[in-house]
Amino acid sequence: MTNFRSTKELSHTAVMIMLKAGVEHAEDMGQPQCIVIVDASGVTLGEIRMTGSKLLSLDTARAKAVTAASHGIPSGMIPDSVRLAVATATGGKGTGLPGGLPIRYDGILLGGIGVGSGAPDQDVAVACAALAAVGAEPI
Amino acid sequence: MTNFRSTKELSHTAVMIMLKAGVEHAEDMGQPQCIVIVDASGVTLGEIRMTGSKLLSLDTARAKAVTAASHGIPSGMIPDSVRLAVATATGGKGTGLPGGLPIRYDGILLGGIGVGSGAPDQDVAVACAALAAVGAEPI
Amino acid sequence: MTNFRSTKELSHTAVMIMLKAGVEHAEDMGQPQCIVIVDASGVTLGEIRMTGSKLLSLDTARAKAVTAASHGIPSGMIPDSVRLAVATATGGKGTGLPGGLPIRYDGILLGGIGVGSGAPDQDVAVACAALAAVGAEPI
Amino acid sequence: MTNFRSTKELSHTAVMIMLKAGVEHAEDMGQPQCIVIVDASGVTLGEIRMTGSKLLSLDTARAKAVTAASHGIPSGMIPDSVRLAVATATGGKGTGLPGGLPIRYDGILLGGIGVGSGAPDQDVAVACAALAAVGAEPI
Repeated sequence: MTNFRSTKELSHTAVMIMLKAGVEHAEDMGQPQCIVIVDASGVTLGEIRMTGSKLLSLDTARAKAVTAASHGIPSGMIPDSVRLAVATATGGKGTGLPGGLPIRYDGILLGGIGVGSGAPDQDVAVACAALAAVGAEPI
Repeated sequence: MTNFRSTKELSHTAVMIMLKAGVEHAEDMGQPQCIVIVDASGVTLGEIRMTGSKLLSLDTARAKAVTAASHGIPSGMIPDSVRLAVATATGGKGTGLPGGLPIRYDGILLGGIGVGSGAPDQDVAVACAALAAVGAEPI
Repeated sequence: MTNFRSTKELSHTAVMIMLKAGVEHAEDMGQPQCIVIVDASGVTLGEIRMTGSKLLSLDTARAKAVTAASHGIPSGMIPDSVRLAVATATGGKGTGLPGGLPIRYDGILLGGIGVGSGAPDQDVAVACAALAAVGAEPI
Repeated sequence: MTNFRSTKELSHTAVMIMLKAGVEHAEDMGQPQCIVIVDASGVTLGEIRMTGSKLLSLDTARAKAVTAASHGIPSGMIPDSVRLAVATATGGKGTGLPGGLPIRYDGILLGGIGVGSGAPDQDVAVACAALAAVGAEPI
C-alpha cells in the first residue's frame, strides 16, 4: 500500500446542508430530533438539539453516528448477540439503537449521521433526508 | 419557529420546598432517601442524601431525574427493550429504574426529580409528595 | 420567590441561524472556526467544526460558550487572578480564553456562544455576527 | 489506637437547616449562590443552585467544600505556592478559591461547606451563616 492515500472528506458546507435538511424533515413530520454528524474518525463535525427533543437523545444520536461511521453499516444492524459487549467495551460509543447511518460518497466511508428522539423509523427517515440533501449514497 | 420562546423554569424556592417535602415524606415512611432535582437540561438544581440512605442511590437518583427530565415520562416507563442500550449510550445517565418523575407546570416540562434508596413504590411516593408540595402536575 | 418563573429560551431556529451566520462570517474572513452554542444550563444546542479549523478548538469553543452562559459576561473577561483556579475547579469547563459571549434577549441570559480557531478578535467577531443574526443583545 | 472509634457525623436534618440558612442569607444580601455540603469523605450530602447564580459555581462550590473537608481549614487558606499543584493532582477537587469552610462540632471535623457565585466575602458570609444555624464551630 502506498504511504499516502487519496480519500475524500465531508466539508462543513455539506454538514450544514445535512443539518438543515434533517431539521426541516423533522419539522415536517412534527417530531423534534437530535442530529449528530461525525467524521470517519468518529469526531463531531456538527450537531443540533431541536426544541422539544429529548435531552438524552443528543448522547444516543452521537453513539449512533459513531457506530455507523465505525462499522459502515446502519447502527441498528449491529447484531443482537454483541450489542452489550460492544456498548460496554467502547464506553457506550458503540450502540445497536437504530437511527445511525454511514455517510458514503464514491464508495468511500466519510463518517456517520445519528438521529434520536423519535420512533426508530422517524430517526432513520431524518438521517436519510440528510444524506439525500448532499447526494451521499442512500442506504 | 420564533427565535426566542417563552417558557418557565423552577425557582430555588420551589426546589427547597420539594426537598423538604420529600425528606419529610421519607421520614414519615421510615425509609431514608436520596433526592435529586434537575432542570430541563438535566443539570442539578438541588439534592439531599439522607442519613442512612444508600450511598450509590445518589447516582441512581440523579440518573432517574435526568431520564424523567429528558423523556418527560416516569423513568420506570422506559421500555425494557431499550433500557440497556439507552443506559450504555448515555454513559449511565439514562435509566429505567423507577423513582424518577418529570416536573411539569402549565404543560411545560421544567425538569425531573429522582428518588432512590427505598423500594420502587417508596421512591415514587416521595417524588409524588415533592411534586404535590409545589403544585406541579401529578403523574 | 414564586415556584415557577417565566423566562425565555433559544429555539433551534435561532441556533441554526446563528451557526449559519457564524460560518458565513468565518468564511468571509478566511479563518475556519469551531462554533458551539449552549443553553443557560451549559448544555449544547448546536455546534459546527469547520473544515480546516483546529481540532481542539471544538473543546475550547465549548468551554468559552459554557463560561459565557454561566457568568453572563464574555469569557475573556474572567479575571486573570482566578482563571487557573476556575479552570481546574470546573474540570476545564470554565475558561478565560476570549471568544465566548453570553446570549441575551429581553435582558434574560439564554445561553452562550463560543468560537475558537482564529485570533481572539476573529473569534469574537464571529460570535458577534451570530448574535446579530438573531437580534440578540450585542456586547 | 482502638479498632473502632467513636465519632460524629452530620445528619440530613443539619444539612437541610444549613441549606435553608445559606439560601436565606444569600437572598438577604441579594446575591444568588450555589451551596454544596459534603461529609468528611468529601461526598455530597446536599446542594442547591439558586436561581440567578452562576452555573459553573456549582462546580467551584463543590471543590471548595471538599477542600475544606479535606484540610480542615478554609479553602482560601491553601497556600499560593501549592494551589496549582493541588488542583491538578486532585483532578480539580482541591482549590484555593475562598468560600469553603470546614464543618466542626466538639472538635471533630464533620465535613465542609462550599459557596460560590458572589464576591469572596459574600461566599464566606453565606457559609458562616450556615455553620451558625446548626451550632457548628465558627471559623
